[in-house]
Parts: sequence; C-alpha cells; structure tokens
Amino acid sequence: MKTLKIIKIGGNIINNEVLLNEFLDDFATLETPKLLVHGGGKSASELSLKMGVEPKMVNGRRITDEETLEIITMVYGGKINKNIVAQLQARNANSVGFSGADGNTIVALKRPVKDIDYGFAGDVVNINTETISVLLANNIAPVFCAITHNQKGQLLNTNADTIASELAVALSKEYKVALYYCFEKNGVLSNIEDDNSVIEYINNQKFEQLKNEGIINDGMLPKIHNCLQSIQKGVSTVHIGNNKMPFEPHIKCTTFQQ
Amino acid sequence: MKTLKIIKIGGNIINNEVLLNEFLDDFATLETPKLLVHGGGKSASELSLKMGVEPKMVNGRRITDEETLEIITMVYGGKINKNIVAQLQARNANSVGFSGADGNTIVALKRPVKDIDYGFAGDVVNINTETISVLLANNIAPVFCAITHNQKGQLLNTNADTIASELAVALSKEYKVALYYCFEKNGVLSNIEDDNSVIEYINNQKFEQLKNEGIINDGMLPKIHNCLQSIQKGVSTVHIGNNKMPFEPHIKCTTFQQ
Repeated sequence: MKTLKIIKIGGNIINNEVLLNEFLDDFATLETPKLLVHGGGKSASELSLKMGVEPKMVNGRRITDEETLEIITMVYGGKINKNIVAQLQARNANSVGFSGADGNTIVALKRPVKDIDYGFAGDVVNINTETISVLLANNIAPVFCAITHNQKGQLLNTNADTIASELAVALSKEYKVALYYCFEKNGVLSNIEDDNSVIEYINNQKFEQLKNEGIINDGMLPKIHNCLQSIQKGVSTVHIGNNKMPFEPHIKCTTFQQ
Repeated sequence: MKTLKIIKIGGNIINNEVLLNEFLDDFATLETPKLLVHGGGKSASELSLKMGVEPKMVNGRRITDEETLEIITMVYGGKINKNIVAQLQARNANSVGFSGADGNTIVALKRPVKDIDYGFAGDVVNINTETISVLLANNIAPVFCAITHNQKGQLLNTNADTIASELAVALSKEYKVALYYCFEKNGVLSNIEDDNSVIEYINNQKFEQLKNEGIINDGMLPKIHNCLQSIQKGVSTVHIGNNKMPFEPHIKCTTFQQ
C-alpha cells in the first residue's frame, strides 16, 4: 500500500501570510499522494462583523445560522480554498479544491437539536472516496475546506479536524494514511507554559491518566479524542505538532498509539 | 468521438430560484459527459453593496479592484458554485466545482492597462484539460465559475461566456463539443421587442449584414463574436437560446455556422 499524507492546517497558519507561504512551499515539494484540509475560523468571523452579523460560539463551536452558513461557504469554499489552490499551482503542485459536496465526497446530517441548536452544523455520516482516489492516482492533491452537505441540497458547516480524520479513516482502505494536525504549539504539552514539554506518545491509557491529572486543557480534549479514534479506525499514524512537523521526520511532536 | 455538452448559464437563471431549480432538474437528467459554466454578476454586486463597495462597470465589464476580486472569489467560487454542486448532488448528478486554478485548468494573464484599467481581469492564455478529462471519463460533471489564475498565485476575474468558449475549443480535441449559451431570450432577435423574431442561423456573412443594418444591439456583439470564433476554432455546434434550449432539440434558438 502507498502512503498518503493528510495534513490539516488551522487559523494560526491560514491567517499568517508568512507561515502560510512557508507551509505551502513545504506542501508543494512533498511527494504525492497528499491531501490538505483547512479551517479558517478567524476570516469567517471578520467577514461576519463586516456584514454586521455577530459571530456566535458555544463551547468553541460556531452556531451556524443561515447567514453564517452563507459567510462560511464564501470564506472557506471561496476565498481561502481558491487562494490556497492558486498558491499551490504557482508552486507547480497540481491541486483541486473540494467541499464535501464536490464529488459527493462528505455526506453529513444536520446536528439534531438537544440542549443547543448549532444550526447548519453537520455530523459526518458517509465518505465517498471515488473522486478523491481518481485525483490522487493522477498526482493531484485535493484541498478540502470544512464544508459538507446532506445530499439533499443543504450545505453544512463541519469541524475541519473531523473532516481530516473522517477522510483519513475512509482512505485507509486504499492507502497507508499518515495524518498530521498542525497547530500553534509543538504538540500536546504537559505544561502549557513550556513549549518544550511535548508529550511524545499518547495512547488510550495515557489519555485517561492525563485527563484524571487535569494536565490537558478542555480545548485539547476533543482533538486528542479525534486522534485516538482515527488510530483505532485504521489510520496508520496520527501526529499533532507545529507547521514544520509533517515535513521534518525527526521534529518533536505528539504521536498517537493504540 | 463522444459528444460533450457544455452549457453556460448567467444571472437570469442563477438569481431566480424557480428557474435555477428547473434548469438543474434538466441538467441532472442530461446524459454524461456534460459540463456547466456559470456567471453570477448580480449576486456579486449585492454583496459589494452590503460591504460598502460600489460596483464599477465599464462597457458592461466589471472593474475588478482587490476588494472586488475577493468578493467575486467568495460569491462565484464559494456561494454560487458550492450551492449548485450541492443541488446537483441532491439530484444524483455527480459534479465537482472548479475555478480555473483548480487542476490548473484555465491560465490567464492580467489584462494590460490601455485606456481602461480593468484591474484583476484575466484574458485566457491556456487551457489544461487533463483533470477535466479524467472527471468527464468518470461521469462527473465539472461546474466552472468565472475565475481564472495566472499560475503565479493571482486569481483573476474572467467573463463566463469566454470561459465557456475557451473550454469548448480546448475540449474539441477530445470531444465533439456542443456549446449552449442560455440567457433570458429565445435567441438572437431581429426585433428586440418580439421574442419570436429569433434569427435561426448566423454565419460570418450574416453577422456583418446584421451589424451593418444595426439590427443587433451592442451587448449582443461580443456574445455573437464569441460564438462565431468558437465554431471557427473547432467547436461542433454553438447555440444561443433560453434555459430549455439545451434539453429540447426542436426548440427555436440561434445556431451558429461557419
């Protein structure tokens, strides 16, 4: 089986032109097959405010009303996605931008309303890899924004970390998938104040221990849960680290184990 | 050679929900291979105004400053393109949204400044059909918005009619291409007040005659020129007509001839 690298980048890279350029330089020279997933929360909030729509967040998740969904579709699917693709083409890295509607790749269901009505937020129910596989086989890198659809014409807002892990799991049937989450730190830290305190390995047991000891902050819990789930569902390797991590094999980062 | 249908739709369909749904119903049932090109000028102007950016037009062409380019990328590449793709998936018509940057399909040069500075307007210089061909061969319909790129990382605004004709010409090497321009009238009219006065055939000679007699209004001249050019460059058939025209072979419309 060939190795497929799936890399997820978030706002800390997307909203920093220098970091983004550096990242795209690295991504462009990475050998194929490869796939990029991007978030972009800050830019959506900026446009929201420009248009007089106050962004609403609950537990770090965006409440996606109709107006917000339109903004997200424009910012994630349009502005950020098309610019990343154009920047990759400038580096001779052939790529095609995707939402989950394109190629019917990511089907989701609107999140049922319980305590909180998240609006047009989508929970992934199915991944169709055919179109992605055809492109990967032709050395074209799919670039995914964090939008899914319900196969009934409704676009939905889905967490970019989730999109990366769902794609990684689904593509593990055809590839040995290495999944990389890039963020602003060098990995999961045992001391949030010390960027060198990277926890190098996390498995289920270690995760329970870290939770019980209160070492990991709340924002990291779903991220780590996501990573452990991916490993259990067949993804070959999963790492959390900084923007250099996917390109430098000996750099310090957090690696997940079963 | 297989026949490929390329259909271009503009604002009159995109901005009318009933017409758009009807059109997408028809497009979804059309046999593959097929390709859709959409404009969407009115929606871009609406967002412009919402954001306090006054749309600037000269001779029916948009002046694309940096802010306007961003709006166009969001509206054409994000909002309209992703919604059309989601609507097609709801109709079981597999499709993938494209700008000219995706798959490096449409390379353009920023229009040189002469009398008028059009800003980030792009004139097409090269079409790469590889990615489109791979999708068409897999029964996936590419859906193009009117954005190109210069292969140096710059997105550019390009007329949707031009995109349709350039794609049609380039794909004529692999397919027998039938190109359809849908608009608000039944075809090119000899009497603008009478929607039944469709001129059924136009060739170069007839075009000269119509121009000399002042029968065709200024807005139609570049459209007709585009159509005649496409025929000369190898496109099999070119038609201008209403939104039903590509799906009903006996409907009245204007057909172009060499």
